[in-house]
Amino acid sequence: MSVTYPKGFRAGSVAAGLAARGGVDLTVVVNDGPTFDAAAVFTSNRAKAHPIRWSMAAIDDRQAKAIVLNSGGANCFTGPEGFALTHRSAEHTAETLSVVEGFDVSASDVLVCSTGLIGEPLPAGAVIQGIEVAISHLDDSPEAGKQSAQAIMTTDTVVKTVEKERDGWRIGAMAKGAGMLAPGLATMLVVITTDAKVDGDTADAALRAATAASVDRLDSDGCMSTNDQVTLMVSGASGVAPESSTFEDLLLEVCVDLAQQLQRDAEGASHDITIEVIGAASEADAVAVGRAVARSNLFKAAIFGGDPNWGRILAAMGTAEADFVVDATDVSINGVRVASAGMPDQPRSAVDLSPRETHILIDLKAGGHSASIWTNDLTHDYVHENSAYSS
Amino acid sequence: MSVTYPKGFRAGSVAAGLAARGGVDLTVVVNDGPTFDAAAVFTSNRAKAHPIRWSMAAIDDRQAKAIVLNSGGANCFTGPEGFALTHRSAEHTAETLSVVEGFDVSASDVLVCSTGLIGEPLPAGAVIQGIEVAISHLDDSPEAGKQSAQAIMTTDTVVKTVEKERDGWRIGAMAKGAGMLAPGLATMLVVITTDAKVDGDTADAALRAATAASVDRLDSDGCMSTNDQVTLMVSGASGVAPESSTFEDLLLEVCVDLAQQLQRDAEGASHDITIEVIGAASEADAVAVGRAVARSNLFKAAIFGGDPNWGRILAAMGTAEADFVVDATDVSINGVRVASAGMPDQPRSAVDLSPRETHILIDLKAGGHSASIWTNDLTHDYVHENSAYSS
Repeated sequence: MSVTYPKGFRAGSVAAGLAARGGVDLTVVVNDGPTFDAAAVFTSNRAKAHPIRWSMAAIDDRQAKAIVLNSGGANCFTGPEGFALTHRSAEHTAETLSVVEGFDVSASDVLVCSTGLIGEPLPAGAVIQGIEVAISHLDDSPEAGKQSAQAIMTTDTVVKTVEKERDGWRIGAMAKGAGMLAPGLATMLVVITTDAKVDGDTADAALRAATAASVDRLDSDGCMSTNDQVTLMVSGASGVAPESSTFEDLLLEVCVDLAQQLQRDAEGASHDITIEVIGAASEADAVAVGRAVARSNLFKAAIFGGDPNWGRILAAMGTAEADFVVDATDVSINGVRVASAGMPDQPRSAVDLSPRETHILIDLKAGGHSASIWTNDLTHDYVHENSAYSS
Repeated sequence: MSVTYPKGFRAGSVAAGLAARGGVDLTVVVNDGPTFDAAAVFTSNRAKAHPIRWSMAAIDDRQAKAIVLNSGGANCFTGPEGFALTHRSAEHTAETLSVVEGFDVSASDVLVCSTGLIGEPLPAGAVIQGIEVAISHLDDSPEAGKQSAQAIMTTDTVVKTVEKERDGWRIGAMAKGAGMLAPGLATMLVVITTDAKVDGDTADAALRAATAASVDRLDSDGCMSTNDQVTLMVSGASGVAPESSTFEDLLLEVCVDLAQQLQRDAEGASHDITIEVIGAASEADAVAVGRAVARSNLFKAAIFGGDPNWGRILAAMGTAEADFVVDATDVSINGVRVASAGMPDQPRSAVDLSPRETHILIDLKAGGHSASIWTNDLTHDYVHENSAYSS
C-alpha cells in the first residue's frame, strides 16, 4: 500500500547492505504520470544534509519523476564526496530508468533522501548498485509499497503508512521517524503520492498548509534533524480533478495521521502528550506556548513519573513569547482542572496519568485562537536509546 | 563562612518545618552596615514567584538591610495569600529587627526569596514564627554562614559557598540550585556579601556583568525557574574602597566559582560539559551556538553514553541564530578534533569520554570572539530524580 496505493506509482526496494539492522534499506519510487507535479518541504536546520541540498534544487521546477531514499546513513557532514554520491544517485536513477524503462528523465527530475548516522560516508558502490536492483523490482503492488516504507525505517519499531480515498482518487503515504522529532519539520522522511489531478501550485500550497498544521506541530524531543523532507508527488492518473479545498482537507488528514503515527512510535516514550492551547490572542501564540511546554524536560520527566506537576507547566509557559498574563491562565491535566487563574484548583491526586494518551489543556484567557502541539514524555528508555545508538 | 565571611554581616537559621527533608529551612541574613547598598538580578521568566515580585520592588532604591530565604516551597502560583505571606515576611522581619535589634529598618529594606515546590501554599504560621527564631540566632560566625547556606538547599547534595579576600576586603557567597538550571538566570538562589566600600551603581553594574558571564552561561537542563534571584549586599565594613575593576574581577571570580559548583551538583548528571565556542563573529553568536548545543537532548544523552557523536553537535549548531557557515566549522571533543570543515577528521574511537569533565571545542571560523557555556549530560538519574521529585 503506502505510496503505491494511488494509480500511477511504482516502488522497488533492495537490501543494499547500508543499514546495520539488515533488510531492505534503499527504495526508489517512480511516478508514471501522466502528470509529474511535485512539492516538498525541508528541514529549516541550517545544517542540511547533502540529499536535502540536492532535492531543494531539483524540486525548483515543481516537477519530479522519481525519488530515491536510503536508511543506514544520513550522508550529512560527509564532504564533497558525500554530495557527489547524492548527485550520482540521482544521475544513475535517471540513466537506469531511461535505459530499462525508456523513461524521459534527467537527474534533476530525481529527488534524494537519506537517513541514519550523521558524519559517516555511505558506501558508494552499494548505493549505486542498490539503485539498479531497486529499479528492477519496481512494482505497483501493495507489497511493493509496504517494502518501500520498510526500507526507510531506522529506530522505528513499526511501518508508518496511510491510505485515503475520495470519489475516485487517492492519497498514499509512507513516513519514517522516531527520534529528533522537532519542528522544521518533525525529523522525518515522508513521501506522499496522489493520483488526483491537481496542478503544481495547488499541490505546493496544500503541502505547506498541511505540514504546518501537522508534522510541524510534533515536537517529541526538541531536536531538529539535518535530513527532514516531506515530498508530495502527483500522477493525475485517476483522471479526477477534486476541488482544491477537498484535496487540501484530505492531505491534511493524511499528514495528521502520519504525525500521530510518528508520535506513537517516538523513541522510548511511554506517554503521547497533546498540549492543547486555547484562548490565545493568535494561533502563533498558541503554538509558541504549546512548544515551550513541550520543550520542558522537567515537565516531560514529571509526566513519565505519573506526577501531574502543573507548576512546571506554568513555569514553561512563562518562557514563551506570547501575549497573555500567566496569572490569568487555567491548566487541566486529563480533564482535571489543577490550576485556575494561576492558582491551585483541584488536587493533584485527582489526576490519573496511567493512560498513554495524555491531554494538557491550557486556557490563556487572551483571545479566541487555539492550536495543539504533540509531544512525548522523557523516559529512561529515551536516554538509553539515545546514549546507546549512534544516529 | 559564606555570607558571614565579610565584615558587617550576620546570619541566623531555623528548622521551621517547611522542607520535607528536615533540618534548617529558613534563614535571615542581615547587613549591619555602615552602608546598605544592594543589587539583584532576577529570573527573566514571565512566570515570577511572589518573592521575586516583592524583591524587584524592594530593591528599586538599591538599598537592602536584610534578606529572608526559605526552602520547602517556592510560593509561586499561590494566589493573593501567597503574595500576602511574602509581604508579611518582609514586614515581620523588619519589625522584629527593629524591636529586638533596635534597627532602623522598614519592610521595603527586606528582600525575600523562596524555593521548592511550585503551586503549594507555604504554612504562614511556621514562616512567621521561623523568622523570629532565625533572627534570635543572628551571628557573624563561620558556622552561622554555613547554616544559612544549608537552609536554602533543596535537591542540592552539597553546600555551595565561596569566600574570597583581597587587600583587606572580602566577598562571601552562598548558592543553591540543582535543577531547572538555565539562563535568565541559572535557576538558583544566590546571596553575595561584601565589606568592600563600593557604591550602589558600581555594585549594580558589577553584579550584572558578573552574572551575565557566569551563572547566565550555565544551562544544565534548559528549564527556567520562576524563583531565581542573585543578590549582592554591601556593608562597606572593611573601610577599604577597591578600584571598581578590581571589585568587578573578584565578583566575577566568585560568580564563576558558584556556577561551577552548581554545575557539578546538577541533578543526576554524570558529566560536567564545557562547550567552548571560539572564532565567533560576536560574543552573542558564541553564546547562541553554545546554548543550542547545550539544549540538545540527543547530544547530552550521547555524552552520557560515552558516544562522541559529533554529528549531533553540528546538527544542534545548525539551529542557532548566529553568523557562521556550518560547513566551515571544526569540532573537538576532549582534545580530539573529530570534525574539520564540517567533515570527519580523527576517528570517534580516539575520544575518551570516561572523565566527568568534558570539553567540547567549537571553532566557527567566523571571527575573533568566544564564550563558554556549561551544561551537563542527560542521564537515567536526571529522569529518575525529576519524575519522582515534585519541585
